[in-house]
Amino acid sequence: MERLSIPKFSEKAANAARERLDSLAKLPGSLGRLEELAARLAGITGQKRPTFPKKTVVLFAGDHGIAKYGLSTSGSEVTALQVRNFLHGGGAINAFCRTAGADLRIVDVGVCTDLEPELDTYGLIRKKIMYGTHDFTHEPAMTRNQAEASVQIGIDMAREEAARGTTLLAAGEMGIGNTTPSSAIIAVLGGFPLESVIGTGSGISSNEILLRKRECVRQGIEINKPNPADALDVLAKVGGLEIGAMAGLMLGGASLRIPVIVDGFIAGAAAMIAVGINPAVQNMLTGSHLSTEPGHRLAMDHLGIPVCFKLGMRLGEGTGAVLLFPMIDSAVRILREMNTLNDIGFQHFQSI
Amino acid sequence: MERLSIPKFSEKAANAARERLDSLAKLPGSLGRLEELAARLAGITGQKRPTFPKKTVVLFAGDHGIAKYGLSTSGSEVTALQVRNFLHGGGAINAFCRTAGADLRIVDVGVCTDLEPELDTYGLIRKKIMYGTHDFTHEPAMTRNQAEASVQIGIDMAREEAARGTTLLAAGEMGIGNTTPSSAIIAVLGGFPLESVIGTGSGISSNEILLRKRECVRQGIEINKPNPADALDVLAKVGGLEIGAMAGLMLGGASLRIPVIVDGFIAGAAAMIAVGINPAVQNMLTGSHLSTEPGHRLAMDHLGIPVCFKLGMRLGEGTGAVLLFPMIDSAVRILREMNTLNDIGFQHFQSI
Repeated sequence: MERLSIPKFSEKAANAARERLDSLAKLPGSLGRLEELAARLAGITGQKRPTFPKKTVVLFAGDHGIAKYGLSTSGSEVTALQVRNFLHGGGAINAFCRTAGADLRIVDVGVCTDLEPELDTYGLIRKKIMYGTHDFTHEPAMTRNQAEASVQIGIDMAREEAARGTTLLAAGEMGIGNTTPSSAIIAVLGGFPLESVIGTGSGISSNEILLRKRECVRQGIEINKPNPADALDVLAKVGGLEIGAMAGLMLGGASLRIPVIVDGFIAGAAAMIAVGINPAVQNMLTGSHLSTEPGHRLAMDHLGIPVCFKLGMRLGEGTGAVLLFPMIDSAVRILREMNTLNDIGFQHFQSI
Repeated sequence: MERLSIPKFSEKAANAARERLDSLAKLPGSLGRLEELAARLAGITGQKRPTFPKKTVVLFAGDHGIAKYGLSTSGSEVTALQVRNFLHGGGAINAFCRTAGADLRIVDVGVCTDLEPELDTYGLIRKKIMYGTHDFTHEPAMTRNQAEASVQIGIDMAREEAARGTTLLAAGEMGIGNTTPSSAIIAVLGGFPLESVIGTGSGISSNEILLRKRECVRQGIEINKPNPADALDVLAKVGGLEIGAMAGLMLGGASLRIPVIVDGFIAGAAAMIAVGINPAVQNMLTGSHLSTEPGHRLAMDHLGIPVCFKLGMRLGEGTGAVLLFPMIDSAVRILREMNTLNDIGFQHFQSI
């Protein structure tokens, strides 16, 4: 796995954006978080008036050994079903990408079955490292080499997308059971008690299953002893292949000054891995929605990555991140297309 | 002013949308408020899978007699400056409309100066009723006839837009000082204490001015005695011309089953007027953002109109409503474009 150098968030570009925002034909600050978003995107890109003509969601799919414990409302076979569905254009993420005018790329990093050859014609990107992770309650989810390989796939995808002209990225995922490794990652790297991180995922309604999920994570941590000071060790022992690849996309995007939008809970866990690998990535990411999963807020607060809205969503796939794309367009259009107070013939606001 | 008949919110269409949402290739409810939004739009339009190919913001501009008390960071002359700016494409609302692919129509219902003839070539719609309202701390803001005329302009605009093919509307506004009449309307129609409704508007930072604003509203209510059971009386005595027109757009849109998206604080006051005139309009509107102005939440809760996000915005113009347009597209695309669980070969979720 490459060790990337991550450029610094440009305070100069962010401040230039803030100055311009304050000069525009509106009261300073009256566009709230949209102004903060515009300034952050300026700092990430290093451009005082950035623009994002080509947006892409890269969705990584992988399966999980712990899925056999029945902690999800469906089994691992649904990961492959949904990958096919996305390739055929019938998922929520496809619909959202159409609204946002964004491309969608689907990457198999660890689906537990062989996907049919004809899916290649629909654009499937084959980078399978293994047929799902191992059951981390008994052994590490994967080797360190496999963890590094998953991150490298994400880095490679960021670079490939940059070469295709992509200027804005989001990391999406599909992997039945992946709120469980994400909970483990966030608990270990954030030092949070398990009860505060582990939620109902996308569909648990009984307390018994919730306790089983917690016990599963507790065992995984106890047996594997992931080292909180070594994010790759955490990823290998209690993580997931698609989570590693998402972290890689974040690192790769940051190295190229391409903003990578953080989606929900799984993306939050991936962001913790990415920041663990290289803390400089922290300022180079920006959030979108706040998931209903309680650990998501903990992760985003821990990382200091701002989120914009809370819509009660818990679907994954990158859906929350794509909803932010049009808001990003609006935020940066302000910088480029609005007149200043001077332009419209107004002198200054009275202080009242 | 016409008395319109408002069709009923279609529970049948909303339920058909909900059923479809539950059958799609995702966990039921996992798209949170977007699913509620899709169902509400189905109920408003009466279509189980609505679509909104043509979206339009109608922005009404008007001035206010009370502006002379210095309750805003700028004077009434800025209303006309901004109208020109919008017509030339340089406002925040213009930038946001471009992102959303929405049309913008600018209507002068009560700007306090004569706008130049050459603005006609930029599409200015001239419907001026008077040169700004009267100072409501001394007399009614306008006559009942003028209030009715303002509402009628909004109704006419909704009808005109429907004839042009518009399928989704938002009501925007420009009018220096208009948080003051909006506060008065919400306090009177909602029965709220003034302290809870009156906020800093778009720029008050001193307590002295805040108290002056409260005193101004108190006087207006005391002298004019608006009748809370008669929304047109409230509009005439302590309202505004652009607020009446926005209420008319909401009534007109509802009568045609065209959803009108409610923006921030001023739009919330207009919605209270519209619902006061005809309670059937209540279910036919839907909200967008929650403003920083404290009375906005009171108004929306009082009306039972859901909002989607809170971005710390306080700009007006319709900016918050337009930010919802792409989310609406995504919400209704789900209904039309997603595969069902059956389609993708999945039987059913386990209850866990």
